[in-house]
Amino acid sequence: MTPTIALLTDFGHRDAYVGIMKSVIRRICVDAELIDLCHEIPPQNVLSGAYQLATARPFLPNDCIVLAVVDPGVGTRRRPIAIESEGIRFVGPDNGLFTMAVERYDVGSAVQLTNSDYHLPEVSHTFHGRDIFAPAAAHLAAGVALADLGQALDTSQLVRLPGIGPLIKSDSIECTVVHVDHFGNAVTNLHTSTLAATGREVREVSTSDQKAPFGEGFFSVPKQKPVAYMGSAGYLEIGVRNGNAAAELQIGQGTLVHVSLSATT
Amino acid sequence: MTPTIALLTDFGHRDAYVGIMKSVIRRICVDAELIDLCHEIPPQNVLSGAYQLATARPFLPNDCIVLAVVDPGVGTRRRPIAIESEGIRFVGPDNGLFTMAVERYDVGSAVQLTNSDYHLPEVSHTFHGRDIFAPAAAHLAAGVALADLGQALDTSQLVRLPGIGPLIKSDSIECTVVHVDHFGNAVTNLHTSTLAATGREVREVSTSDQKAPFGEGFFSVPKQKPVAYMGSAGYLEIGVRNGNAAAELQIGQGTLVHVSLSATT
Amino acid sequence: MTPTIALLTDFGHRDAYVGIMKSVIRRICVDAELIDLCHEIPPQNVLSGAYQLATARPFLPNDCIVLAVVDPGVGTRRRPIAIESEGIRFVGPDNGLFTMAVERYDVGSAVQLTNSDYHLPEVSHTFHGRDIFAPAAAHLAAGVALADLGQALDTSQLVRLPGIGPLIKSDSIECTVVHVDHFGNAVTNLHTSTLAATGREVREVSTSDQKAPFGEGFFSVPKQKPVAYMGSAGYLEIGVRNGNAAAELQIGQGTLVHVSLSATT
Repeated sequence: MTPTIALLTDFGHRDAYVGIMKSVIRRICVDAELIDLCHEIPPQNVLSGAYQLATARPFLPNDCIVLAVVDPGVGTRRRPIAIESEGIRFVGPDNGLFTMAVERYDVGSAVQLTNSDYHLPEVSHTFHGRDIFAPAAAHLAAGVALADLGQALDTSQLVRLPGIGPLIKSDSIECTVVHVDHFGNAVTNLHTSTLAATGREVREVSTSDQKAPFGEGFFSVPKQKPVAYMGSAGYLEIGVRNGNAAAELQIGQGTLVHVSLSATT
Repeated sequence: MTPTIALLTDFGHRDAYVGIMKSVIRRICVDAELIDLCHEIPPQNVLSGAYQLATARPFLPNDCIVLAVVDPGVGTRRRPIAIESEGIRFVGPDNGLFTMAVERYDVGSAVQLTNSDYHLPEVSHTFHGRDIFAPAAAHLAAGVALADLGQALDTSQLVRLPGIGPLIKSDSIECTVVHVDHFGNAVTNLHTSTLAATGREVREVSTSDQKAPFGEGFFSVPKQKPVAYMGSAGYLEIGVRNGNAAAELQIGQGTLVHVSLSATT
Repeated sequence: MTPTIALLTDFGHRDAYVGIMKSVIRRICVDAELIDLCHEIPPQNVLSGAYQLATARPFLPNDCIVLAVVDPGVGTRRRPIAIESEGIRFVGPDNGLFTMAVERYDVGSAVQLTNSDYHLPEVSHTFHGRDIFAPAAAHLAAGVALADLGQALDTSQLVRLPGIGPLIKSDSIECTVVHVDHFGNAVTNLHTSTLAATGREVREVSTSDQKAPFGEGFFSVPKQKPVAYMGSAGYLEIGVRNGNAAAELQIGQGTLVHVSLSATT
């Protein structure tokens, strides 16, 4: 079976950084299949990367290795790590990037990438994606065991993003926009499983100066009208049918969203 | 033989949408080769997507499966379809997206993707690329027959883009800019085969306030000067040598272009 | 062994140009592995492309074929070429694009791509990437010898970019910014090997109105402060920790950088 490595970074497309990581992988594991998840995470925006990994997680091939680098702390003491979670392995910096991708799954084990046999011979201060993370992912793809990559870590000590969950009240939920997508749809941190646990349903969604009815999708409202819906990634989103919600409703990452609830019908 | 799936969407690169589609494909057909045609089609711009597919068509591998998603009607009644045309199979929404790619080729058969055995178990209202189209393309790559994907459609009833052809007059042709490329070259809907059928040659090309001589290519004019030429995709284009025609001549999608003809020499 | 073809162009992501080149490759060499190095080289900016190729060179798979197209002279008399250099083969226009990638390596041989058996049947005036360069790279991957692609060239006659080296003085070096990366870091043309040859060390780096201390990396300075360091590609860079140096310090391609030297400690 050819292993799959799925890549996510904030490296953008202006440079050869991602291509160089792929070259490094090919030199170590010639038959790895590479899938680009996203390379346009806003620079150093760990929350945005964490969200994207969460949306991809349920659809990854069973034995996939996720190589993710959004790494504002490169060159400092933050730990380079690899995590195993129900068959999927994650490689990247220990800065919370994997918090959302593993939060509804078991985490089996984690290591710090201390074994320099699996680094490039020279490790730079600024490009651990090339020198540490890509080699680690490639060696995993080539059959090296996670435990061989370095020292075991207590999984409870992994860095977690603070406050990524919404605030549940008796008849409402306060949540936050974590991502604006290419079409201008604003995705919140309210997951369908969190909503289901309240035993209630969404009545209406509002920001400080806008309201949107709740529907099944864009077709629930006329063209150019706002609508809130459970998006394809399982999170509450606000969109404008055939329009751009972020631009038209002035919503961005961090915008607070008030969700009023009604009794389940 | 490893099948090739060529992808075209308006999903952009800010999100993991395309990567998630590829993950879904890899889970169904592990050895499919994936080629990205374009993911920066302007959001919901079916005409632009249709044009890009037409430029790629002559160069696709013989048994290629084209997975194309520019889908402003997602979640409404527009039909998800698959089409076979001279060995190439196209999967996507029935909204005219394939009109230009098949217009000089035979269309053998078409189906509506009604067979839910070949959808993901849960189908969202907003991401049919992941839930219906990617699985369909992957199952085709894995050997499933087109006819098994759903109910047969009369190919004459497929949605076609309106008015994509230019207007032929006795000594001129009125055509339209359908696409501005990365270099600022403005591509029209006048194909070399349409021009050849008139038995005449291009004398000069003009927009409402600009003229461009007709030549073989950029080298036909001095640097920074406009020139019209039959582009590499077989359509009439207007460019500026070592410049950006769209910006410098104020041309965009929809700009009317007047082509004056002379007798063939 | 599956051959690897690494692609670099200024074609961007708005069009299917790169995807069409890949389709052409797949038709000629079905099992070539394709790696994208970069497609967002600023349009027609040969220096920027040359720099990116230099950064990738040390990490390429051993038998890699580099297919690079930044080609402002397409359709003119500039020569299409292929070069062999220590196992890596480069295919593209003879306009200096490969200067930096081969400057610290031996160049074994070079040919002009004159053999039309290895072009597409019809060669356009504007898209040699599709019609000449992609087929040449694919035929190399499929086992065709470099010498069969066309007429041998004297490697000393290949076009070289002018003035890409920095100016070495007794206690300083004058260098130039050749590239601004996605994070806003400004990369100069001062390579670590050039610095080492002076037998001295960097004391401080300055532009016309800014100074930056020299350090090992971002962590050498407080957040939001500028720092100069030897970057991961081996060239002197100026960055701002957790910031964007190009925007904040008004640096761009061509900015002159003064490097003051001190005796080696």
